[in-house]
Amino acid sequence: MVDILHRIGVRTPAPDKVYDALTTVDGLADWWTDDTKGTGDEIGGVLEFRFPVGGFDMEVIDLRPAERVAWRVVDGPEEWIGTTIEWDLHQADDYTVVLFAHRGWREPVEFMHHCSTKWGSFLLSLKSLVETGRGAPAPRDVQISDWH
Amino acid sequence: MVDILHRIGVRTPAPDKVYDALTTVDGLADWWTDDTKGTGDEIGGVLEFRFPVGGFDMEVIDLRPAERVAWRVVDGPEEWIGTTIEWDLHQADDYTVVLFAHRGWREPVEFMHHCSTKWGSFLLSLKSLVETGRGAPAPRDVQISDWH
Repeated sequence: MVDILHRIGVRTPAPDKVYDALTTVDGLADWWTDDTKGTGDEIGGVLEFRFPVGGFDMEVIDLRPAERVAWRVVDGPEEWIGTTIEWDLHQADDYTVVLFAHRGWREPVEFMHHCSTKWGSFLLSLKSLVETGRGAPAPRDVQISDWH
Repeated sequence: MVDILHRIGVRTPAPDKVYDALTTVDGLADWWTDDTKGTGDEIGGVLEFRFPVGGFDMEVIDLRPAERVAWRVVDGPEEWIGTTIEWDLHQADDYTVVLFAHRGWREPVEFMHHCSTKWGSFLLSLKSLVETGRGAPAPRDVQISDWH
């Protein structure tokens, strides 16, 4: 089992705005994909993220306000199903630090390499959203390769 | 042992420009850090990368023109020493695909999360350099957090 790990720091006085951007449909739509539906603010809720090609359904499996969000992938690409995505937040002076983990990949396939870089880019979209009010969600996301 | 993995695609007709940007001091200085010295185009050569805070010395351990570059970290932060950094290139139509791996981390520490995101950001700097002639090397690199 292999994991994708990332860390960003968002310049904001408290973790609330980052937490909102991870638990509300409007927040998620402003940094990950315009086409976001469902329920992100209760355990057992399901979020549906759609992209120009494909998408993911995530069940919310853990929520601790301003501290932690976790999802389990319940539908999407075969490699993603059953993996978990975890967001742990803490405040360090003027920054909300986000420790991100996408855990449980069975093999380090080429698609995992792609998703790692793409997650990093989307995390910078989340940072930009909270700091400036403007993220880069799909379909206006940063193109990193021939796989988009 | 845990690995950082990434994948980018650089829009260019052949892998030569990416290979040059990974094996020449001028190329490396244009996407990773201005302060690059040493020898990157022969096995056993040592590259010295310096940043506003700290740096890394890498020994070149594998080179296959237009296909593969590998380094071993011989000096730098304690967590990096002994780890390896591998770049595998292949052409997919109009793109040179770069599969990147920073292998051999002993523990998935917070610093590893940071380095993962930072590598992703520098890979996009490499892409930009080859596609547009302009990268974002240190000290003009993208700030991703309180740790820079």
